[in-house]
Formats: sequence, structure tokens, C-alpha cells
Amino acid sequence: MKEVSGGICAPNGFKAGGIWCGIKPVPDKGAVSRKRDLALIYSEKKCDAAAVFTTNRVKAACVQVSRKHIAGGKLHAIIANSGNANACTGEEGLASARFMADLVADEFALNPAEVAVASTGVIGVPLPIAAIEHSIGALANSLRGDGAGHAAALEAIMTTDTRKKEISVEIEIGGGGGVPVRIGGMAKGSGMICPNMATMLCFLTTDAAVSGDLLDASLRRAVQHSFNRLTVDGDMSTNDMVIIMANGMAGAPVVTDGSREYEIFSEALEACCIRLARSMARDGEGATKLVTVTVGGAADEQSAETLAKSVAGSSLVKAACFGADANWGRILCALGYSGAEFDPGKTGVRFKSAAGEITVYSDGMPVPFSEEAAKTILSGEEIEILINAGDGSGCATVWGCDLTYDYVKINGDYRS
Amino acid sequence: MKEVSGGICAPNGFKAGGIWCGIKPVPDKGAVSRKRDLALIYSEKKCDAAAVFTTNRVKAACVQVSRKHIAGGKLHAIIANSGNANACTGEEGLASARFMADLVADEFALNPAEVAVASTGVIGVPLPIAAIEHSIGALANSLRGDGAGHAAALEAIMTTDTRKKEISVEIEIGGGGGVPVRIGGMAKGSGMICPNMATMLCFLTTDAAVSGDLLDASLRRAVQHSFNRLTVDGDMSTNDMVIIMANGMAGAPVVTDGSREYEIFSEALEACCIRLARSMARDGEGATKLVTVTVGGAADEQSAETLAKSVAGSSLVKAACFGADANWGRILCALGYSGAEFDPGKTGVRFKSAAGEITVYSDGMPVPFSEEAAKTILSGEEIEILINAGDGSGCATVWGCDLTYDYVKINGDYRS
Repeated sequence: MKEVSGGICAPNGFKAGGIWCGIKPVPDKGAVSRKRDLALIYSEKKCDAAAVFTTNRVKAACVQVSRKHIAGGKLHAIIANSGNANACTGEEGLASARFMADLVADEFALNPAEVAVASTGVIGVPLPIAAIEHSIGALANSLRGDGAGHAAALEAIMTTDTRKKEISVEIEIGGGGGVPVRIGGMAKGSGMICPNMATMLCFLTTDAAVSGDLLDASLRRAVQHSFNRLTVDGDMSTNDMVIIMANGMAGAPVVTDGSREYEIFSEALEACCIRLARSMARDGEGATKLVTVTVGGAADEQSAETLAKSVAGSSLVKAACFGADANWGRILCALGYSGAEFDPGKTGVRFKSAAGEITVYSDGMPVPFSEEAAKTILSGEEIEILINAGDGSGCATVWGCDLTYDYVKINGDYRS
Repeated sequence: MKEVSGGICAPNGFKAGGIWCGIKPVPDKGAVSRKRDLALIYSEKKCDAAAVFTTNRVKAACVQVSRKHIAGGKLHAIIANSGNANACTGEEGLASARFMADLVADEFALNPAEVAVASTGVIGVPLPIAAIEHSIGALANSLRGDGAGHAAALEAIMTTDTRKKEISVEIEIGGGGGVPVRIGGMAKGSGMICPNMATMLCFLTTDAAVSGDLLDASLRRAVQHSFNRLTVDGDMSTNDMVIIMANGMAGAPVVTDGSREYEIFSEALEACCIRLARSMARDGEGATKLVTVTVGGAADEQSAETLAKSVAGSSLVKAACFGADANWGRILCALGYSGAEFDPGKTGVRFKSAAGEITVYSDGMPVPFSEEAAKTILSGEEIEILINAGDGSGCATVWGCDLTYDYVKINGDYRS
């Protein structure tokens, strides 16, 4: 697997574009440019498709509509807006979401059920659907099959994001050197990312040939090991979705169940999702640090994940990471209330970053350590908390971030 | 029920005291006084006693020791220190906790099993037991049977607390005017207060005559409706305990199961615990506001509690409360991921404070409202979020606080 450029336009046959249609406010005079708020992803050929949606009981209109559309296993395009979540907007919101799909279908002579719809932004405000309707032609015209198309679409799905989350890789499928196949991805999301994925959109494209059921299985495994292991503030959004479209245009053999190709494809997809998930954790609202928590020695993978999420999700641990404070007591405390079984008498804790590594707790007892050395390690931009939970074989890695003044600032008045 | 003065010394036969023994650091030159760090509560007569302890899998030494001692249902005294949690300190820590009970037992010629031990402070640092040993005489001498004794003991259990949490009430037990009976209480705790009680100590005294099993039942109900409905940051401590001692010295008839007296006593105990719990929420680390979340119309009380805790515990809702931002979308979102059943189509949300009341969501749809009026209401020091979750009869109230810059500041470097 090697990295390539182009993002979601890296695989053959995909185009993307993004424009400002008027959902995000007109910027103040003197601002450099309007922020894009409407994105389109389009495949020349109809795609096999799979998706994972939010588990929140309150589901945005776009989630309800896209879930229905994706049930057929086929997609041709995705339309997405930022600046308005179209959630808690009742029947009118549902009609608007359906209309967004209709607009794209009309423009490209598609079946509306082959168009997915996504929204992100403020909840409970009616979607200004006329702005989208008036701009559909311009949106279609913005489509490009290169990195610029990808970049425009990515900008158009971003809200409080401060970093771009993007990836594109190439793998080889089939024997004898194989045929190059690509996977591209983009994501948005910086707050509300939790035990299960939240206020996040992720769109993945590939020119591999993978049929619906297999694509679905591969995506679910990748999401379980990436976005579902993110924890930023424990909230889960009404709008989350991860969609993958596979158009088969690389000309490689069809990926079949149980084959070596399926493993290669699935591993690459998982690697892409992990990369995007890490970028999201790194960009947690107000975050200054990526905090990676790995638990080993747990009874099983599920226990390890529960323990790691409890540590990464603890406000006290997150605040200690911000302050570069080697307060392992809070880590023990978070393990203790996680609900998962572990052996406090065998537990160990280490901190690690580019500046070095230090053991602070071992076999259930504090280990004397240099506070100064620990401070240096915890002052890194990417810190790892490594936990041994006993004799078991279960391990899991979870990504989170620190809790900062800016988190409070950003979320104290998001709407104004 | 009427309020009286005296705190835990208000009931007959209880004395309390507190001193500085050297666990908390010697203050900087020029500081007004040393902060007390060692407290004693003593009853002239042996008491019936009951307690509730942390459910954290990692339990401080004092929890392990006190749990064993309380199993006999009798207590004569409680010794408590602040500045050191004596948690994650291994066999040595257990020995220190037992030795604290022994010291009190020796001083007053008691059975060590009739002495409870409590600690709060930093985890993982060996308890300076010699400082306690050398000070046991001074501690015993500090005992007083009035409000000053209560105040000294209360100061000695406080850590990051900025407010005193105390209560004392009088009720009448028995027919024909009845005999006055008192209940007193003190608590410490400001961070880490969560779905289940955490880094909190609460000591309750009463001169009612209530036997062990009944006292236990009454305390558990009170804790369930008070401390277990607190949520400040979702963490749960290794040291939490609530203890009640009943010495019967009011001379009132023994409270018996199923009697009207039992109801009167239990209601008063619950009211005391709710008062202390509210004070703790109000004093959440860095908090500027008490946030009370009440859910009605849920399927049952358990569902209502789950829904209310999810809202009160959401970092995004808490940050919005800090910013006085009427962001009801986050409330819907938190209801949605709580895991409890509710009907989004029938849900309503109101905000209330001393400045007024406003409906922002009703029957599953946003209600147009004045942002200015909402801001005024949410700028109150005590705000209520009132949620209707459907047609059911389940309701519950939960207490929390806002998430502020100061929370991050306090917890970014607690140990230094």
C-alpha cells in the first residue's frame, strides 16, 4: 500500500466539487472568501455502496433518507451541505432532504434512490432549500476529477474543523503484479466524537470491484476499528454517516469473499479509516494534543476497548494531558469505573511520546519516576498512554484528545 | 421539618473536631493559617451505623477498611483526612488505614471495628501516617459538641471545595407532639462527581433511634435520590463514602419498619442528602451555575433518570449552559444517545431560572422563541432544564453544573 494524491478523486471515475450556495453566512467585508457549504461527489459509473449511520435515537432527515436509499446497495452520487444539520426539523426537513436527492437526480438523469444526502451544522433550523435549488447547476459545473475537486468538496463539508482530514492510497489487486486499485477518503468532524462516531461525515471512494454485502462487511470492520474508537467529548450526533462507493473502474478482478484480495482491500480500507479517525481526534474541538490510549493484557478485545475508552473519555485524564500532568491516579480511577473486568493488582501504566517513554505504575503499585521527565514526555503533541491490564490477550487502541480552555470557548456559544 | 444550626453536632451526643497535622503542605509565609487536614467525629454512645461506598473497582485503603468495620452495623467514631487519598498504595496503605482506626480506638478505649476511616486527596502517594500518629492527642482535644466543632471537622475534609456543604434539621418523632429528633450532615466533593457518587465524603449524624437494617435501607434510598443523581464530570472516585451514625440520644421512640415515623425520618434524611448533593453540584470544579435537569413523561423512573443524566452529563450541554446559549439541539442529541426509550415526536424542552421560563421545543418540533429572553434566563446562577419525554409517568431530577475555563484550569494540574 502506498500513498497517492487526489483524495476521493484518486480512484478512477470519481469527480467532486464544492461551492458556496448561501447556507453559511456571507463573510464580513474584507474577508478573503466565502466558505463553501455545498459538496457533490459523483461517479461516472453506478457504484456498489455501503454505509454506517448514527445510532442516536434522534436521526437527522438526511440520515433517514440516505438510509433508505442505501438499502438498495447502489449509489451514483452524494450531495452534502454544511452550516445546517437539517435535524429536528420535522416533515419539512424530510421533504428538503428528499428534494436534495431529487435535484441531483434531475441534473444527472439518475434514480433519486441512487443519491445519498448528508448535512452537518446547527440543529433545529429549517434548511434553506431554495439556496440549494438555485445552486444545483453551479454545483454540477464545479465537478472535477482531480485533487482540486476533492479539496473543494472537502472544504464544503467542514464546520469547526481546523484541519483537513483526507487520505488516498493505492494497492494491487489480482495475481502477477496485479492491477493498481485506489481508495480515497475525506472526513469532517471535530466535536461530539464519542464511543460511537458522532458529528462526523466520512466519504470513501474506490475503483475496486466489491459487491454490496462484502463492501458492507469490510466497511463495518473498518469503522469498528477506527471511528468507533474515537472519543473526544462523549456526545453522539444526530447526523453521522460513513459512506463508501465502489465503481470497479480500476479494471481489477472482482474482490470475492474469503480471498486474499479481500484481506488486502479490507486492510487498506481500515488503514484509511484509522488515518482519518486519528486526524479527527487530533482536531478535537480546542484540542492541542492527540492522546492515544492502548490497553493490552485485557480479558478480550471488547474489555480492552471499554477500558481504553473509559481512560480516553475521562474529563480529568483529558485535562491532565492538557496540563502535561502525569496524574496516573486518574487513569487507574477511569479503569476502575469502566465496568470492564481487570486486575488492579497486575496493572501497569506507561506514558510515551516523541520525547521518550516512562513507567509510572507497575504490577499494581506506583513506580518512583522523575516528574520533570514525565512533564517533558507529556508536553508532546502526540502522547500515548500504554496500559497493561493483566494476563489476558485482549488489546485495543483508542484515540482522543486533551480538554482545553478552547473547547469550552468553542462550545460555550457555537451558534453565535 | 425545620432547619437548625450546629451541623453534625446538632444531634445530641455528637462531638467533632479538626486540626492541621501536616498532610496538607505548610502554607507560604504570610498566609493566614494552616489548612486543617484531619477530622474526628465522635458519639458519646455507640451508634447504629450504615454506609454506602464507591462502586469503583479500584478502592482506596480506607474504603476497604471501613467496609469491613461497618459490616458489624455499629460505629463509635469516624476519622478522616484530606490531602492524601491513600489509594493505590498497596499493603502499606491498608496497614495505614487500619492504624488510623487503631489510634482512635486506643485514645477512646473503643473496639477498632467501631471506627470508620476516610481519606481524600491525591492518589498513589504513601499516607504520612506518622503525622497522624503524632497528632492524635491534639485531634481528640479538638472535639467540641457545638457548631465550632462541626466547622473545624468540615474544613478538615475539604480539598478543592470552594463552598461548605452542611445541613442540620429537626423533626418530631412519636405521637402527641412528639420528641424532637435531629439529623446533621456535612459533605466534601466538587470534582469527579458522576452517575454514581464520586470523590465525595458525606458524614451524617442523628440522635434518632434507628436500627442497622432500617438505617441502611433509609440511607440507600436517600443516596439513590441525591448523590447518585449528581453529575459533574462523569468520573467516579476510588474513595467515596456516605456514612450515617444514629445514637438514639434524643430519647424518642425507636423508629420501626413500616411506621409513620420511618417515613418522617427517611424523608428528612433524603431532604438532607438532596441539599448536600445540590451544594456539591453548585460547587462543581470551576462551575459558575447549578444546572438542574428534570425529565417527566418517561416510561418509568429509571428511564427518566437515564435521560436526565445523559443531558446533565453532556459536555456540549454543559458548555452551552456556561455560554447561556439556548442550544436545545444538544439536549435532543443527548436524549438520543442516552440509550433510554423516549418518543422524539412528543418531546418538549423548557428552560427556567429566577429570570423566567421559556419553551424552546414542543411535541417534537422547535418553537420560535426570543434568543434574548432565553439568554437572560440562562444567565441565571441556577438554571433548570425541563424535559417532557412523552406520555409516561416516570420522572427524575438530576443535578449538574456548567463546564468552564476554570474546570480545565483546576484539573490541568491538580497535583502541583
